[in-house]
Amino acid sequence: MDHRDFRILGLAGSLRQASVHRGIVRAAHEVASEWMSCESFDLARIPYFNQDLEDEGNPEPVKELREKVRACDAVLIATPEYDYAIPGVLTAALDWCLRSRYDPTPFRHKPVGIAGASPGGAGTARGQMVLRQILLHPPAYVMPDPQVLISFSRQKFDLETGDLVDKETRDRLRRFLSALAEWTRRFEEPTKAHQVQTRERSA
Amino acid sequence: MDHRDFRILGLAGSLRQASVHRGIVRAAHEVASEWMSCESFDLARIPYFNQDLEDEGNPEPVKELREKVRACDAVLIATPEYDYAIPGVLTAALDWCLRSRYDPTPFRHKPVGIAGASPGGAGTARGQMVLRQILLHPPAYVMPDPQVLISFSRQKFDLETGDLVDKETRDRLRRFLSALAEWTRRFEEPTKAHQVQTRERSA
Amino acid sequence: MDHRDFRILGLAGSLRQASVHRGIVRAAHEVASEWMSCESFDLARIPYFNQDLEDEGNPEPVKELREKVRACDAVLIATPEYDYAIPGVLTAALDWCLRSRYDPTPFRHKPVGIAGASPGGAGTARGQMVLRQILLHPPAYVMPDPQVLISFSRQKFDLETGDLVDKETRDRLRRFLSALAEWTRRFEEPTKAHQVQTRERSA
Amino acid sequence: MDHRDFRILGLAGSLRQASVHRGIVRAAHEVASEWMSCESFDLARIPYFNQDLEDEGNPEPVKELREKVRACDAVLIATPEYDYAIPGVLTAALDWCLRSRYDPTPFRHKPVGIAGASPGGAGTARGQMVLRQILLHPPAYVMPDPQVLISFSRQKFDLETGDLVDKETRDRLRRFLSALAEWTRRFEEPTKAHQVQTRERSA
Repeated sequence: MDHRDFRILGLAGSLRQASVHRGIVRAAHEVASEWMSCESFDLARIPYFNQDLEDEGNPEPVKELREKVRACDAVLIATPEYDYAIPGVLTAALDWCLRSRYDPTPFRHKPVGIAGASPGGAGTARGQMVLRQILLHPPAYVMPDPQVLISFSRQKFDLETGDLVDKETRDRLRRFLSALAEWTRRFEEPTKAHQVQTRERSA
Repeated sequence: MDHRDFRILGLAGSLRQASVHRGIVRAAHEVASEWMSCESFDLARIPYFNQDLEDEGNPEPVKELREKVRACDAVLIATPEYDYAIPGVLTAALDWCLRSRYDPTPFRHKPVGIAGASPGGAGTARGQMVLRQILLHPPAYVMPDPQVLISFSRQKFDLETGDLVDKETRDRLRRFLSALAEWTRRFEEPTKAHQVQTRERSA
Repeated sequence: MDHRDFRILGLAGSLRQASVHRGIVRAAHEVASEWMSCESFDLARIPYFNQDLEDEGNPEPVKELREKVRACDAVLIATPEYDYAIPGVLTAALDWCLRSRYDPTPFRHKPVGIAGASPGGAGTARGQMVLRQILLHPPAYVMPDPQVLISFSRQKFDLETGDLVDKETRDRLRRFLSALAEWTRRFEEPTKAHQVQTRERSA
Repeated sequence: MDHRDFRILGLAGSLRQASVHRGIVRAAHEVASEWMSCESFDLARIPYFNQDLEDEGNPEPVKELREKVRACDAVLIATPEYDYAIPGVLTAALDWCLRSRYDPTPFRHKPVGIAGASPGGAGTARGQMVLRQILLHPPAYVMPDPQVLISFSRQKFDLETGDLVDKETRDRLRRFLSALAEWTRRFEEPTKAHQVQTRERSA
């Protein structure tokens, strides 16, 4: 990873056009340092997981999503909480991406940052816990902090467009992305410990 | 509720044809007492939840599902565990059914039984926890026991068809359905406590 | 259960004297209808669970607590959230009470209501989820709603004493206790469904 | 960290003498590479958390435990699952260690490995999820894989002593500890990303 080129893949868990979670992904691209980028992928194109379908080969949008997860340096998942968990569309995308019957999951050891916003005070606290539980499966390397739980979202986003307009929250998102870059950097190279082990095994 | 007519709505969380969870729903219909029935609804027809779509009115399959949940006496959810949680298709169906912006959710105070099967030893333990968390939201009245976590499913189902063939597990499912009928019965009538309260309030 | 005598056992998850959770238990006794009472039991007397200790017979405070849980009509657990879960003292009390090696757990099918307060906006949301997961084990019949998550507790309690002083929250607690009485009532008598089943089995 | 000196602090969540979780901590010391050590700390000495007590200063055993967590390179927590969660004694130890009112928690950014064993097939799956949720709070850097969920423990431990006798499981534990050393190594040094950020901030 060249730090002039830290590529984040941004996935929004909500499908409506004016979603504040789409807004978070857009804002991530805007506030990130110049050596970072945040590309979004629209999950609407992903069908439900169905093993019969998988047996015929992954559908094109699934192939594309898996490829993009594999190619990026880190994934940003911005998701609402629905009913103490996460939306079906995000769950379905993960259902496909976390499969490793024919091909290892691209989420294995992939650095991931999670962000969410809610109109009330809890800021998607329970939903993010469920998402962390899911991402333990591959496992992904989900960044533990700083956490981004944006409460009282109506005061921080433009509700017509979903744009993140609150300056303090934009600054918080910028620091979150810097931390994600650093978190990712930790998983880049084989560590010295790894080298020691390798020597031990070959001895 | 006339006990000659205890109608269960069966939802399978897996879409493949030979799914063992479809098999559980079929077996529920077969093993139930003669005064019970278990009708299934195929979740494949439900789209992802999208608020823009909802604003135009619920799609037909969503209307139908909500109506069936409302009309039944209890819901049986038979679901696999995907990645320590539940599949996107089931999550999406719940996303729609648990909405109450325009219309109260039909899952509010609806008796629900949960069953799951896994090839390994854990029997969907973590997935069922996530489903219980989601169903606390309306809240539904999710039956706490007996729990049906079917481990080592390959020894209990016909893998060609998904049929539940293990006699002991079929007996267990029968007892589970009897318990679900009794659990449902507890929520049928206003209790005397309710009547006392009503008198107190009107006093 | 005579409704002039609905006996709640109140357990506070915090040990400090001015705990707002002790305050919730006291307030429960004050605001309840005249046919209800809420007795508290101080968990400080319960040791950590240790199977070696159990093999010599339950310690006196454990025996007493188990007896009180068994004798009451319902349990009210008022607990803070510590680190996204519940405190060790409450966990330890449950460790002892949920054992059933020598004696069935008194929490089996016992109606339980949960309440919690936090200084911030989340109101013990994550902690209550963990407590519900634990209480699924016996299982207890944990009331699903109304939920009592009291946010911004500093504005609602007297911090010198822990007393619940906010009128609106006291009213909310009163409605919660009425609901708990009704919830309990539902589990009091064998249902007609049970009677039908019994006839079927003996036929 | 000199790799001739990777010091693990081992905490067992069970208090009985012949606990298999004490056995896991002992086995960790035995199977580890010669440049590793695993010292255990007996949690029985830790009182319940009580803020009144904390206000007078941390009790001696708490001070000692916090010091040991701070001084070690990584923490190994070997814990049973009690009632879908973790025992009160471990919870209480974490209650104290995760406090940061007067002093930052020594678990902040501390590498942690989790292991557990159960007599049945689930291998503490639900309990480990709760522990991961708790350790997200500081946050600690909990190793996501390999996971050590030891099922059917009666076949793998000497039940008289708690000793881990199964060779395959001992090998698995050895690999787990090597992975923990490598995981820890990743968090040792400021990354280049960090250095880049530092330059940016001072520019």
